[in-house]
Amino acid sequence: MKTSKAYAVCPTTLFTVGARASGRVLEIDRWLLRTLLNGVGSPDIGAALWDGKDALPGSAAPFRMTIQNRATLLRLIANPLLYFGDDYSAGNIEIEGEMVPFLETVYRAMARRGDVRRRSKPVPNWQRQTVNSPPESRKNIHHHYDIGNDFYRLWLDREMLYTCAYFPSRDISLEEAQVAKMELVCRKLRLKGGERVIEAGCGWGALARYMAKQYGAKVRAFNISSEQVAYARQRAGEEGIAGVEYIEDDYRNITGECDVFVSIGMLEHVGPNNYRKLGEVIDRTLSETGLGLIHSIGQNIAEPMSDWLQKRIFPGSYTPTVREMMEIFEPYAFNVIDLENLRLHYARTLEHWLERFELHSGQVAQMFDESFVRAWRLYLCGSIANFTTGSLELFQVLFSRRGNNRVPWTRADLLDSGKNHGKP
Amino acid sequence: MKTSKAYAVCPTTLFTVGARASGRVLEIDRWLLRTLLNGVGSPDIGAALWDGKDALPGSAAPFRMTIQNRATLLRLIANPLLYFGDDYSAGNIEIEGEMVPFLETVYRAMARRGDVRRRSKPVPNWQRQTVNSPPESRKNIHHHYDIGNDFYRLWLDREMLYTCAYFPSRDISLEEAQVAKMELVCRKLRLKGGERVIEAGCGWGALARYMAKQYGAKVRAFNISSEQVAYARQRAGEEGIAGVEYIEDDYRNITGECDVFVSIGMLEHVGPNNYRKLGEVIDRTLSETGLGLIHSIGQNIAEPMSDWLQKRIFPGSYTPTVREMMEIFEPYAFNVIDLENLRLHYARTLEHWLERFELHSGQVAQMFDESFVRAWRLYLCGSIANFTTGSLELFQVLFSRRGNNRVPWTRADLLDSGKNHGKP
Repeated sequence: MKTSKAYAVCPTTLFTVGARASGRVLEIDRWLLRTLLNGVGSPDIGAALWDGKDALPGSAAPFRMTIQNRATLLRLIANPLLYFGDDYSAGNIEIEGEMVPFLETVYRAMARRGDVRRRSKPVPNWQRQTVNSPPESRKNIHHHYDIGNDFYRLWLDREMLYTCAYFPSRDISLEEAQVAKMELVCRKLRLKGGERVIEAGCGWGALARYMAKQYGAKVRAFNISSEQVAYARQRAGEEGIAGVEYIEDDYRNITGECDVFVSIGMLEHVGPNNYRKLGEVIDRTLSETGLGLIHSIGQNIAEPMSDWLQKRIFPGSYTPTVREMMEIFEPYAFNVIDLENLRLHYARTLEHWLERFELHSGQVAQMFDESFVRAWRLYLCGSIANFTTGSLELFQVLFSRRGNNRVPWTRADLLDSGKNHGKP
Repeated sequence: MKTSKAYAVCPTTLFTVGARASGRVLEIDRWLLRTLLNGVGSPDIGAALWDGKDALPGSAAPFRMTIQNRATLLRLIANPLLYFGDDYSAGNIEIEGEMVPFLETVYRAMARRGDVRRRSKPVPNWQRQTVNSPPESRKNIHHHYDIGNDFYRLWLDREMLYTCAYFPSRDISLEEAQVAKMELVCRKLRLKGGERVIEAGCGWGALARYMAKQYGAKVRAFNISSEQVAYARQRAGEEGIAGVEYIEDDYRNITGECDVFVSIGMLEHVGPNNYRKLGEVIDRTLSETGLGLIHSIGQNIAEPMSDWLQKRIFPGSYTPTVREMMEIFEPYAFNVIDLENLRLHYARTLEHWLERFELHSGQVAQMFDESFVRAWRLYLCGSIANFTTGSLELFQVLFSRRGNNRVPWTRADLLDSGKNHGKP
């Protein structure tokens, strides 16, 4: 089984054992804990230190966080968003009760505490700089996406879509919801047989396969993750799908003309300092009467991702506000046609992933180690909580060139269940 | 009949007669004309000066602009966007052929010429300042909306909606399309009986009547146009509609709580320097689980409206880009749920208005004068051309407070024709 033991999600494992010996809990430790909790908006949670006693006796909350040693407590004071992740992964923090509602409670408290009016100034450019030169992008993408197709296969759907699914009704399966998402995207783009599609950031290639197979489109799909491209090529070959070409290259190098430009879940890795560059790529490839769609995680306030996510899970990533996304479109005078927020659909998608991940956590621990399992559990649970509390969102933005009057007249055709995949 | 002769759309009428005597056309006049046309991107139009001869003999365009005197030509060189409007209104410029395609041709040429990449820097704040303090707003609104309900009745629909209609199919009547717009807005807002609605800028009160009558909502509708408010109150009284209160006051003075915040066609008059203020009003009135919708003309590049529209038609107005609209939402961490661009529906709406306006142009000339008729013709035709060429757009933005999870799960209910006006 091909995995990468070198994948480091949790450097604090290195000093876990020594740090566990914290001796008895002092009054100053309790004071530090209260200070820590005040700092994140006094969430209604239970909390304990390494003596196991309730440090907040008043709480009736159905979850309790236990900090196992003093070094962890001190790290949390220094940088709670980074070290909560690292120390949870290392086993220095335990959560009793359900993880998602625990995190939702903490996130809501943090949102209340942070006076959004004060925080609402645009993030200065220097703070938004993500390191995403072409070689840096390759390294960043390798960090997350090349850790093993076998790992992702354990908990993604059959078609290996690692982006928000669409649940026309809440209780359909993940498999159905991912197909529904691809169908929704094709319908929004009013895809027709024979159209030339450019896909920027194609993951394991599912949408490109779908567009070629179901709509007869000619797809050129770009990706810099070599493992994903290899997988995508193999699947397309096995399934005998003509009309799709997977190209291992950076979105900045895309050339040629297309009738449809689509990018699902790549923008998070582009970085706001490159949005204009992405717009330029679209401007030089999209035909006069073409349509484009960008699907990306976003947020409602411009702020950097948590240090932990940035450092351990998604290096170089940033989730834009709607305002920031417009830096792709406005410089090239594109008309924004339609924007849909699928925030709660991403929470539902992640619930499916989490359930499957937990079913296979033993295998994941064998592939990597226990701290990896804990890190990914936190990442999945934390993402659910971010989407349900509204600090993360999922935007699908449909656009055209200025004054393209072949845009859809209404949205009625999106929901027509008798629609025949754009075929006459 | 109550009209206002003081309404000045065309100061150049004052010097029209004297200026007509321009004598013979000189070579320098032809050079100035060519310079003028080059400056607006060399549109493919015919053009003549006061001698009536084709100044651009090569053109096979189905329309020709004739500049009737030298003073007009010089004014056009000085400020084409202002004086084209003024001098067309005064009869110093004549257009042979159809006005809308003529203007579309000119606008497309201007868009090609203006390298949008260069122009795409955000409009500096000083340039975006519109003068919209509360007393100034009152004056600006009075200028356009208080020129006589009898005038607007000649060419608006039965319910007097002076905003973009929604045409589920292209060939329905204006009356039907305005009702469809109100229904679309109510559905997007998932309006339910008994809900408290605040409407900011209610025009002649149609949407408030519709929400109260069809949905049983309790509407407080604000407007600073005294003629509109008087009309709205009278209609609601005549129709015996309970549950709607029309309040003659500025949006900045709105207080109380609501389940639904709606504003249709007011944002154009708010000015970008007040978007944050509007957001604050919404933030202090919208309930935790409420929904809001803002419907506004917008544009794809941040640039001021033409001088002529600013000075003669809509003083104090500004049409924002999507990016700029986000200044209402982002400071208060609202979640943007849905954005729809109804650009081509506004062009269709304006075609209906223009047709009715032309049917009654004789009456309008009696109410005002011929230059008023010409100014409004240009304004209606120019607006159609702006929407069809994509430099103006119509955005409906649906939003909620951060993390309101009672937002609609999908859009499926928007299009369900069996829907019963939110009643159980």
